[in-house]
Amino acid sequence: MRIDIITVLPELLKSPFEASILKRAIEKGLVEVHFHNIRDYTDSSYNQVDDYQFGGGAGMVMMIEPIDKCISKLKSERNYDEIIYMTPDGETLNQKTANSLSLLENIIVLCGHYKGVDQRVRDAFITREISIGDYVLSGGELGAAVLCDTIIRLIPGVLNNETSALTDSFQDGLLAPPVYTRPAEYKGMTVPEVLLSGNFGKIETWREDKALERTKQLRPDLLK
Amino acid sequence: MRIDIITVLPELLKSPFEASILKRAIEKGLVEVHFHNIRDYTDSSYNQVDDYQFGGGAGMVMMIEPIDKCISKLKSERNYDEIIYMTPDGETLNQKTANSLSLLENIIVLCGHYKGVDQRVRDAFITREISIGDYVLSGGELGAAVLCDTIIRLIPGVLNNETSALTDSFQDGLLAPPVYTRPAEYKGMTVPEVLLSGNFGKIETWREDKALERTKQLRPDLLK
Repeated sequence: MRIDIITVLPELLKSPFEASILKRAIEKGLVEVHFHNIRDYTDSSYNQVDDYQFGGGAGMVMMIEPIDKCISKLKSERNYDEIIYMTPDGETLNQKTANSLSLLENIIVLCGHYKGVDQRVRDAFITREISIGDYVLSGGELGAAVLCDTIIRLIPGVLNNETSALTDSFQDGLLAPPVYTRPAEYKGMTVPEVLLSGNFGKIETWREDKALERTKQLRPDLLK
Repeated sequence: MRIDIITVLPELLKSPFEASILKRAIEKGLVEVHFHNIRDYTDSSYNQVDDYQFGGGAGMVMMIEPIDKCISKLKSERNYDEIIYMTPDGETLNQKTANSLSLLENIIVLCGHYKGVDQRVRDAFITREISIGDYVLSGGELGAAVLCDTIIRLIPGVLNNETSALTDSFQDGLLAPPVYTRPAEYKGMTVPEVLLSGNFGKIETWREDKALERTKQLRPDLLK
């Protein structure tokens, strides 16, 4: 899989891709991630990428021309399955979307910044608009990092133990059950007996019960 | 405001806090952000912070003792309004929560990693559990960065123009209207006439109509 991220702030995105699972996935060659600085696609001598919005009002708007140039260059080099724009008014990301995106070959992720991109960018180039949640971020960069993380960890071979992803919250429509590790007792706080019993049938049943109980209590909407 | 982030991967979190708005907010002294590496709170010679889960199964679990030590040290130094655990089964972050958290003085944000933290950590120390969305990340670090970004940008003085945050999506329960910037025509694509009219009353009405229209079309659930 290849992901091209278009941004005005590539430096903001650096560290999440240089640590932990994303780093290993890139090193193993399971995914390629390329950053493109929109400023490299401007003609003007002062690398202008944003301007005041028509009609007045606070906040700058990202201009269409540099984005057009960057996307057009990438599209001339290979086919893309999706050109995604990270925006709070996009479809809300969930695990199902992450699963389906993890099967694609090439995607472009455009990070909005400031007040967003010129609407004509969205009308002309974007195939899909994704939000990571109902809140506003300083820019699409963190959203892009979140999107990439959810996708990349689902690519086969990325996680050391593939069953680990399968038992995560949401994969079966339920929240995950509680987990415990050593010591069995810490300052008087103990671990549920059943987990120490060695009876794997019982443990499985307990975990299923707890997952359902926790989902009912915290997120009944997931059960509908 | 002071934010203490507890993590096994402080290096993953670096760049988002060293760029753009978060960087400026820290430089202006409007917020202090401190990273704490859980490995610095271990006794064992090989800095163990995680272990296999009781009852078997894939994925490591973060141990209670180093987390207890770190949180206890911080709590001995000052009072905290909230000790937040980033987890996919927490309450879903939204703009309202971000607004209320931005008014607090001191918060701790604990990042889960691997399969999560020992449940006893959650029972004993955590006052609030927050999820940034219905998807699974490699760890709580990106979630913490997202949470901090949504909160910090709302602190007065952080954004250059405060009205910019007020017209964002979700602040009035609606998605934001489309935005446009120069040029007025690009490869045959034009800007809505009204935005070029200079009639601010009409522009305001157009924006309100578009915000409502977009919300109805894309996120009718926000109107309920």
